[in-house]
Amino acid sequence: MLEDIKERVCRANIELFESGLVVFTWGNVSEIDPGRKFVVIKPSGVDYRSLTPDDMVVVDVASGAVAEGRLKPSSDTPTHLELYRRFESVGAVAHTHSVNAVAFAQAGMDIPALGTTHADYFFGDIPCTRLLSESEVQKDYELNTGCVIAETIISRGYDPMEIPGIVVRCHGPFTWGKDAHEAFHNAAVLEQIAEMDIKTLTLSPDASMPRYILSKHYSRKNGPDAYYGQQK
Amino acid sequence: MLEDIKERVCRANIELFESGLVVFTWGNVSEIDPGRKFVVIKPSGVDYRSLTPDDMVVVDVASGAVAEGRLKPSSDTPTHLELYRRFESVGAVAHTHSVNAVAFAQAGMDIPALGTTHADYFFGDIPCTRLLSESEVQKDYELNTGCVIAETIISRGYDPMEIPGIVVRCHGPFTWGKDAHEAFHNAAVLEQIAEMDIKTLTLSPDASMPRYILSKHYSRKNGPDAYYGQQK
Amino acid sequence: MLEDIKERVCRANIELFESGLVVFTWGNVSEIDPGRKFVVIKPSGVDYRSLTPDDMVVVDVASGAVAEGRLKPSSDTPTHLELYRRFESVGAVAHTHSVNAVAFAQAGMDIPALGTTHADYFFGDIPCTRLLSESEVQKDYELNTGCVIAETIISRGYDPMEIPGIVVRCHGPFTWGKDAHEAFHNAAVLEQIAEMDIKTLTLSPDASMPRYILSKHYSRKNGPDAYYGQQK
Amino acid sequence: MLEDIKERVCRANIELFESGLVVFTWGNVSEIDPGRKFVVIKPSGVDYRSLTPDDMVVVDVASGAVAEGRLKPSSDTPTHLELYRRFESVGAVAHTHSVNAVAFAQAGMDIPALGTTHADYFFGDIPCTRLLSESEVQKDYELNTGCVIAETIISRGYDPMEIPGIVVRCHGPFTWGKDAHEAFHNAAVLEQIAEMDIKTLTLSPDASMPRYILSKHYSRKNGPDAYYGQQK
Repeated sequence: MLEDIKERVCRANIELFESGLVVFTWGNVSEIDPGRKFVVIKPSGVDYRSLTPDDMVVVDVASGAVAEGRLKPSSDTPTHLELYRRFESVGAVAHTHSVNAVAFAQAGMDIPALGTTHADYFFGDIPCTRLLSESEVQKDYELNTGCVIAETIISRGYDPMEIPGIVVRCHGPFTWGKDAHEAFHNAAVLEQIAEMDIKTLTLSPDASMPRYILSKHYSRKNGPDAYYGQQK
Repeated sequence: MLEDIKERVCRANIELFESGLVVFTWGNVSEIDPGRKFVVIKPSGVDYRSLTPDDMVVVDVASGAVAEGRLKPSSDTPTHLELYRRFESVGAVAHTHSVNAVAFAQAGMDIPALGTTHADYFFGDIPCTRLLSESEVQKDYELNTGCVIAETIISRGYDPMEIPGIVVRCHGPFTWGKDAHEAFHNAAVLEQIAEMDIKTLTLSPDASMPRYILSKHYSRKNGPDAYYGQQK
Repeated sequence: MLEDIKERVCRANIELFESGLVVFTWGNVSEIDPGRKFVVIKPSGVDYRSLTPDDMVVVDVASGAVAEGRLKPSSDTPTHLELYRRFESVGAVAHTHSVNAVAFAQAGMDIPALGTTHADYFFGDIPCTRLLSESEVQKDYELNTGCVIAETIISRGYDPMEIPGIVVRCHGPFTWGKDAHEAFHNAAVLEQIAEMDIKTLTLSPDASMPRYILSKHYSRKNGPDAYYGQQK
Repeated sequence: MLEDIKERVCRANIELFESGLVVFTWGNVSEIDPGRKFVVIKPSGVDYRSLTPDDMVVVDVASGAVAEGRLKPSSDTPTHLELYRRFESVGAVAHTHSVNAVAFAQAGMDIPALGTTHADYFFGDIPCTRLLSESEVQKDYELNTGCVIAETIISRGYDPMEIPGIVVRCHGPFTWGKDAHEAFHNAAVLEQIAEMDIKTLTLSPDASMPRYILSKHYSRKNGPDAYYGQQK
């Protein structure tokens, strides 16, 4: 079942690896089916270099049970599922431990919107979640990671498709999009922005960008009157 | 029309990508024809890996209208055109979001002339523009980006061919040269210098270079008595 | 003798080089035989690109004498041997001069546990040893390097397989594991963590991670109830 | 004439490029013949990717005149020649604009001996020269660059073969060795050390290494009783 999604999810996982965003087995991508009943996700701890569409695991969104597949799903599966349950617009999720994004997660800092590279993809600061409490970590840790992501997006008043990424405190980035490729793409963009911002803050700790530049760049690429790129 | 320029512009755009200066579709190169009536530029949002000379778009310099080509020109086209209209000596323009140059743009700082690598190509600090105002951003944003570049070059008293690059505040670098290859080349040099300078300023925030070293290196490579390289 | 170990040790040494952790001849991997009588180690100062299993040197653990091999063993051999003598659980040792790990060694700082990437592999801060004294350096320097590693592990109350790595003050990282591949793998992980931490400390000098997140991530991957990865 | 030296010098120049130490045409290697009458050096401003042994230029050490070759020698030739005239032990010279070494040159700082990586190759801090005066720059600039290198080595009381490199203030690194390959090799080592030291000083501005560790590591690899590597 869902063979085209398996193909896409497998390809996006391999792109995570080939782009240098993940080393070893430190990342995963999933995508939900159009009926929002099943999620296709990478198996846990498997080397990207030998990954095939057939290795992908199909998981029931409501119960978290494996619906198809020989292998165990990623240990981060409950985090992915919670994001799909909370946000109807999220079609795919990616997770990495890319170096510059992790630095912001470890520092407990938002990735601030300092330039147009950021504004082309993320309509505001990329938030850093609060720390999970001890009890949230000890029981249902991965589920609670999804919950704290949702809590952060909502408490900031963000539309998740306008800010398609976050850094989880002391952990690393999660990104999302309409499909597996876009979730990967946003992971790559978030890492580039994080690198730019670390260097910017080294030069000028008080750097900032006016809101009107953020709005202009975001809408010229993503708004109803977007004029970047070719006619789709 | 202008088949050799299309070839050169396509090649320079691919070089931007292969050199690592741009990822995804984040950059563009254009070149003006010798009669200064038409500009050949990269199409908007197209992947560098599939780019062919035939994809290039020919734009009328005065009106901005597409004169030839199946695709929409880069959304930054009005910026390029304004530079050609304002500076007769500019034969080609390149734009990237390379990480270290963007850091200076986001920090709102000139890239200071701190060493001979800089002096071999840029005869003075590489300026950072002022912020565009809200009205400049909301109407004719890309045109106004070209205007603020011209304003900065002129207000500093610079000859644009002696300082063939700039960083636009909260955005990123634009470079230029006599042809598309040279505009790409200057983008690569500017990025190297920006990386050197971030590291230098980390070690020594007050670093500087005497004017007489800047003059010597610039003129030994670019002046009337240049003695670097082979006889042309 | 020990042909399969030679194969594994040769392969892990080449991986050190191919992963970019070592340049030139700046690193080495060894593995001990199951009887803990012989160690197989890289020859001293030989280029990784021409390394074959047959070049590996077999050394007697107790005496340090060469038991088999045409070439001199790595000059760091006495350090490796001391680790095998002191810690029954150590099956293999790797040493590199990877840039970010060396920065912590030269700064004389532990690599602090700041995030889950660290917690997945190292159950606490990665320690930096004290400086060797002048007499420890002048006589039996390499042996004393092993001794100061052991002293540090023990004085911290660490289980060496729970913190499978260290940085030696003013020198660089040593890592270990159950076999040569794991020792290499831990060297790569340690370098990634060191890079993340340098960037984190640049953003936020007071960054830290609660102990309960460290425990959770370490045990979900390494504890008796580990649920990361596939069933072995 | 000197065909084997041309071969070696060409190869070392290509290694500078392939190792990433130089981009475009920003570097050069030369080697002196055993009779110390002729120097073989890279031609000025020629692309490394098309370089052949036949392109190398033979220059008379005493007069600086071209003795053989179709092309102009590197514009840095007078710097190289001065080093050969001043130091009998120098057999080859390399020059690059590698990023981390340039950062120290631009910061006007020595590259301090902070760890054993440094101590394996350089027996002390790698010095940064003083600034050239205005008159030294305006007349015989490249010759004076050689002079200020020699002045610095001598005033520090250094044996040039024990500290086979330097950074020229506001410019970049020069390294040397017994032959072209070793001069290239020392350029690569110097760049690695510079990168390690920038990161170390970010973590700990007061980092240092005791003299007895410097002496031990330098002599175990380079002294009369060296025991690193295989018997030559």
